[in-house]
Amino acid sequence: MKILVINSGSSSIKFQLIEMPAETVIASGLVERIGLEDGAIHYKDQKDKISLTLPIPNHAIGLAKVAEMLMDRTTGVIKDVSEIDLVGHRVVHGGKKFSDPVEVTQEIKDKIRDLILLAPLHNPPNLDGIEVAEKIFTKSKQIALFDTAFHQTLPAVAYKYAIANKFLTEDNVRVYGFHGLSHKYVTDRAVEFLDKPDAKLVSIHLGNGCSMTAVQNGKSFDHTLGFGPNDGLIMGTRSGAIDQSVIFFLMDKYNYNKQEIINILSKESGMLGLTGYSDLRDIEAQAELGNTDCILALEMNAYRVKKFIGAYTAALNGLDAIIFTAGIGENSSTIRKMICDQMDYFGIHLDQELNAERLPNIRSINTADSKTKILIVPTNEELEIATECYENFK
Amino acid sequence: MKILVINSGSSSIKFQLIEMPAETVIASGLVERIGLEDGAIHYKDQKDKISLTLPIPNHAIGLAKVAEMLMDRTTGVIKDVSEIDLVGHRVVHGGKKFSDPVEVTQEIKDKIRDLILLAPLHNPPNLDGIEVAEKIFTKSKQIALFDTAFHQTLPAVAYKYAIANKFLTEDNVRVYGFHGLSHKYVTDRAVEFLDKPDAKLVSIHLGNGCSMTAVQNGKSFDHTLGFGPNDGLIMGTRSGAIDQSVIFFLMDKYNYNKQEIINILSKESGMLGLTGYSDLRDIEAQAELGNTDCILALEMNAYRVKKFIGAYTAALNGLDAIIFTAGIGENSSTIRKMICDQMDYFGIHLDQELNAERLPNIRSINTADSKTKILIVPTNEELEIATECYENFK
Ligand SMILES: Nc1ncnc2c1ncn2[C@@H]1O[C@H](COP(=O)(O)OP(=O)(O)O)[C@@H](O)[C@H]1O
Ligand SMILES: Nc1ncnc2c1ncn2[C@@H]1O[C@H](COP(=O)(O)OP(=O)(O)O)[C@@H](O)[C@H]1O
Repeated sequence: MKILVINSGSSSIKFQLIEMPAETVIASGLVERIGLEDGAIHYKDQKDKISLTLPIPNHAIGLAKVAEMLMDRTTGVIKDVSEIDLVGHRVVHGGKKFSDPVEVTQEIKDKIRDLILLAPLHNPPNLDGIEVAEKIFTKSKQIALFDTAFHQTLPAVAYKYAIANKFLTEDNVRVYGFHGLSHKYVTDRAVEFLDKPDAKLVSIHLGNGCSMTAVQNGKSFDHTLGFGPNDGLIMGTRSGAIDQSVIFFLMDKYNYNKQEIINILSKESGMLGLTGYSDLRDIEAQAELGNTDCILALEMNAYRVKKFIGAYTAALNGLDAIIFTAGIGENSSTIRKMICDQMDYFGIHLDQELNAERLPNIRSINTADSKTKILIVPTNEELEIATECYENFK
Repeated sequence: MKILVINSGSSSIKFQLIEMPAETVIASGLVERIGLEDGAIHYKDQKDKISLTLPIPNHAIGLAKVAEMLMDRTTGVIKDVSEIDLVGHRVVHGGKKFSDPVEVTQEIKDKIRDLILLAPLHNPPNLDGIEVAEKIFTKSKQIALFDTAFHQTLPAVAYKYAIANKFLTEDNVRVYGFHGLSHKYVTDRAVEFLDKPDAKLVSIHLGNGCSMTAVQNGKSFDHTLGFGPNDGLIMGTRSGAIDQSVIFFLMDKYNYNKQEIINILSKESGMLGLTGYSDLRDIEAQAELGNTDCILALEMNAYRVKKFIGAYTAALNGLDAIIFTAGIGENSSTIRKMICDQMDYFGIHLDQELNAERLPNIRSINTADSKTKILIVPTNEELEIATECYENFK
């Protein structure tokens, strides 16, 4: 069964065509800079690697181009779009309506549209991707999978804010969480790896966006991102958690309006605000050269992760393993070392040599006598989508 | 040596006259509803207890009345104000300028005035109290003690926010912390009680305002309140930590302006927003009767405390004792039980019988085999002020 996975953003479409249950990636790629003069399509399969530069006015044209490349007589991988059984769409916000993948109907699209209020930047292009795909892949079932779904198991103590109840009951203000497909994927892999279905896990997703999830019995129990995508950990350009009085003080002092302060906190803060760089590779390189801002920013970043490991260990009353994933988590031995340093009270003992190795597969990097396991699990949201599509709609 | 301790708020003045080093409270009391028609003064010494109702137009008249009562020929305790050697003033915000008590000079008053920007509700009446006392207790040294001082030892990883550095360097935006006199007092007592100067402690101050402090070697290492007084734990009417996107969403949806949202989060949220009650005694009583909002609010409250115990254990890489203090911490066996429940991973084992006892003194309430000690330490900010005055200016 062939499943096309689509992640449609405001100016890009990522795609993977996956054969299930074999989990083989038949083709993958990216349409980028949609709407700009210098649009591009990158396409890759087991033999070809193609990049085209051309203006791509909208998502419809972008996705039509993807279909064309998949069916190309010389470089393509399928003869007809009807060979694609399922199209799995990543949708960022499913509110409290969706805790499982669903087949797209008019009603489902209306619900995704209703949730634009909660995810104004993400749900519109996600919906665009669905509507465009419906017209191109007319024979395929369209499936929607939600980044919030995994966190629907959060207990009330974790999802509720300490504000008037009416803001929850009338306005749906609560923790929804994000990166759910990634946290689900890596914690499921960890459970298999540890062979312990009831493992108490803390999943640490460190990419451009960063979040942590407490998981037990395969279920999300608590999570650092909340109603929106800027809470908890320090991110590339996002502040993460910040005292509300700072927001009000800066609005007062600089006369910032709401949108200006949102931009400052989400685009000019985090590692960028602290160091002038948002890419962790640059920050690590500068820290090596003795840049004290960069050294401190790395320490602040690691310190927050440490504190959430402690917090979630308390929430779960135990800790079997911590899991590092995503761009930074999988690749930065420096950050992993800083996080695991001085954590022996939690039974966390990093093996420095294993930590320094660069390998593409799931592995443990703790010492043999470490009570708590330390895992690196490469995330794969596309495979998670394909798997959930396959399991629910095969 | 006689030390008069003054805590001057916007509409009240609390005072205690303490003999040092004996630590004897010679007299104490409260002037309340200053500026209103129905002002009142409550005065107490070892033999008398007096309450007067009378309009008290301003702090100067209120404090003059206190001096008068202290010197009253039949019910008073001193003959002349000159018997008072030191007047210790609690000042909420000392910024990053003050980490020790200081004798008040014009320069010090100017600095306290400069800090009004950071504590607009507190520093003005604190300064009022100082200026009024200077005129009445002309022979006494005036000493200022800052609620932020104890937290000046916070390391940069704990006091810095992940926003552009200029907001720290130019605008002094950082964690200052509060309840410092209380956290210092109870952690010093705990160190004596445990006879362990390098004890790793988590101090849990639960009153109308709530905060927690991580302490090692008698120094504050991390703290839940930040730049302002509404972060971290859930409080009587304050939300504590909340995702910034909730603030922006509510401002959008209801067209709230900045002051309205500040009021909602600090006066209509927390336990009040969740249950309709702000006093924990009412909430516990309702929970007993089966009120599900009250039951959940207590659980949310305890859950946040648990998570900070975990976070600070990670920050300190260990935990010798947790300390309960202030109105709720000292009196609510229910909240203490909920917090300590299911925390055996942290070596926390509560003795249910010891927890249920109501006693006025410092004591441990853990089981004999509990690795982590659980202490109740009645706080005494006035005595902390008198002690610091005595030690620094005797
Ligand atoms: N070798 C590396 N060392 C340190 N950081 C890395 C390395 N490779 C990638 N990163 C970091 O990973 C981040 C991107 O993570 P990724 O998971 O791809 O992001 P996204 O959240 O957009 O999916 C980059 O900002 C970069 O800082
Ligand atoms: N016996 C009790 N049981 C539960 N809560 C109590 C009890 N006594 C006092 N409290 C709580 O303590 C709170 C006041 O704490 P306190 O430390 O005096 O406040 P503040 O922060 O104003 O100094 C009250 O709101 C009340 O909820």
